[in-house]
Amino acid sequence: MDIIKLKNRPAVISCATVGGKHEKEGPLGDYLDMYDKYDRFGADTWEKSESEMTRHAVRICLEKANLKNEDVDLVFGGDLLNQCCATTFGISDANIPFYGIYGACSTFTLGLSLSALCVNAGYVKRCASTASSHFCSSERQFRTPVEYGGQRAPTAQWTVTGSACTLLESGGESDVYVNEVLPGRIVDLGINDVNNMGAAMAPAAHNTLKRYFTQSDMSPDDFDIIATGDLGFEGYSILKELMKSDGITLGDNYTDCGLLIFNRERQDKHAGGSGCGCSAVVTAGYFMDLFKKDKIKDALIISTGALLSSTSTMQGLTIPGIAHLVRLTKS
Amino acid sequence: MDIIKLKNRPAVISCATVGGKHEKEGPLGDYLDMYDKYDRFGADTWEKSESEMTRHAVRICLEKANLKNEDVDLVFGGDLLNQCCATTFGISDANIPFYGIYGACSTFTLGLSLSALCVNAGYVKRCASTASSHFCSSERQFRTPVEYGGQRAPTAQWTVTGSACTLLESGGESDVYVNEVLPGRIVDLGINDVNNMGAAMAPAAHNTLKRYFTQSDMSPDDFDIIATGDLGFEGYSILKELMKSDGITLGDNYTDCGLLIFNRERQDKHAGGSGCGCSAVVTAGYFMDLFKKDKIKDALIISTGALLSSTSTMQGLTIPGIAHLVRLTKS
Repeated sequence: MDIIKLKNRPAVISCATVGGKHEKEGPLGDYLDMYDKYDRFGADTWEKSESEMTRHAVRICLEKANLKNEDVDLVFGGDLLNQCCATTFGISDANIPFYGIYGACSTFTLGLSLSALCVNAGYVKRCASTASSHFCSSERQFRTPVEYGGQRAPTAQWTVTGSACTLLESGGESDVYVNEVLPGRIVDLGINDVNNMGAAMAPAAHNTLKRYFTQSDMSPDDFDIIATGDLGFEGYSILKELMKSDGITLGDNYTDCGLLIFNRERQDKHAGGSGCGCSAVVTAGYFMDLFKKDKIKDALIISTGALLSSTSTMQGLTIPGIAHLVRLTKS
Repeated sequence: MDIIKLKNRPAVISCATVGGKHEKEGPLGDYLDMYDKYDRFGADTWEKSESEMTRHAVRICLEKANLKNEDVDLVFGGDLLNQCCATTFGISDANIPFYGIYGACSTFTLGLSLSALCVNAGYVKRCASTASSHFCSSERQFRTPVEYGGQRAPTAQWTVTGSACTLLESGGESDVYVNEVLPGRIVDLGINDVNNMGAAMAPAAHNTLKRYFTQSDMSPDDFDIIATGDLGFEGYSILKELMKSDGITLGDNYTDCGLLIFNRERQDKHAGGSGCGCSAVVTAGYFMDLFKKDKIKDALIISTGALLSSTSTMQGLTIPGIAHLVRLTKS
């Protein structure tokens, strides 16, 4: 599989981000378009709250672009919940043709990739993509209900309460274009500790990044930012070591969305943020703003996913990882 | 959203189908490349059995085309299980770049659509797609464990134990090409009876088919086969009525994969077959053979999905449906 180069410049013409209390209080809180300090968004279950975030993210994204639902030809979307129900119920009344996707926490770049591929090929004029996660709906589905108050391991990450929507247009004018796409491979090195997702996902990010630098004529220093999705402190260090063993040094321009979204000293989030919403909100909010303000011009975003379920965990299976890469450029 | 016409003739160069005992005993049993009369495929849990089916479907599909894993650039795949784990573990050691998808029982045409879009645009040379379901893994996830022995409602459908893999190649020689693609819209008319999926999905099939016939210059009679995925006897009748109310008559060429895969008199399957594996196995096995033998030359396949989870059901939510259309032609 070679890097797919998108020559027709699919433009990111609008983005919107919605988040919760902790995300608002974090270092990137100002980049949220909407937040609810109770994390509920008017809904009576956490699952419905997550749907509401996606509903608002789509709405705000279109409002910013001065567009209506019928102006969008297609939407890709997914989330962490069973049967991707947060997305389904979040966009069920939008009446936009919908292709559902699942990449665990890699869903953001999976959706951005597919929407860029469809826009670049001229199949659709405008294509949106969404990705969401909610701390409370994830905790009770993958671990224990929040009310249980279980002790968290030092390597555990904190699922971001957030949803983002990005809108691409063929030939649109923008500060950001999707320039290249590289689909991830499933990598499973046998990690089975559900409290150490970073370790499970880092080998997948390694696989994708190594293939990228092998196939392209770029080196890590050529980018303003290289950002993995949610490896957290554990996975961040592991990925740097794995890359180094291949002779590829990731420098100070390498970061991880899970490290950026929370403040390690001020917020008690252990190994950092995670979830589909993590790279979604950080990219669609923070990185897009850096492009707009001319602070960055070339970035690699590699959202990382742990393809487990509570059933696979209970049946003693390992945690396969995957990492999908998108290159964003200013022009 | 307009119909996407694929002018570069993405060719279906290989297909493989794997199924269980009941599918083997059904009218289309001869079209299975592999089956296990114990439905276990050597695995010790039903979830792993489903993964094994997908593993074999991919293997056989490539063997038929005399290709190796490294000859395939990309695979799309999904299933009904939580976090699409059947697919993940089924292809985790294939080392092929992977984009995960979720469309409930519409997953087969969702994957076929996306792989055709990628091949047609020249992004990849060869692209595979898989979809699977297993009666026992689905029953215990969405309803009750099989051992519980619950009474089934007359409108209930029987999840097909089956997995299929299709392989597309750009400019390949074949008996079947993916000619057009039309993404579905989520349609939710408020049905909340989990024992009547046909009624929940029929309005989505109606939406997609109505848009297709409104946008194209084709009429239902122009096709040798129009097949919905798994509406079953209930949904089949409802769709015909809904279409009729729009002045579009579906004639004898209209069928449903859920009606074809089991024998209503001989097999006790109530309203018919369902699940991702239903339209996957029927299309990749039976319809592809009809193309090969020149018995059909133009077909519309509309896999239908019910986008519910056991959580959404327990929270009293309705069942949104979706239906993705693919037009297959002989040349």
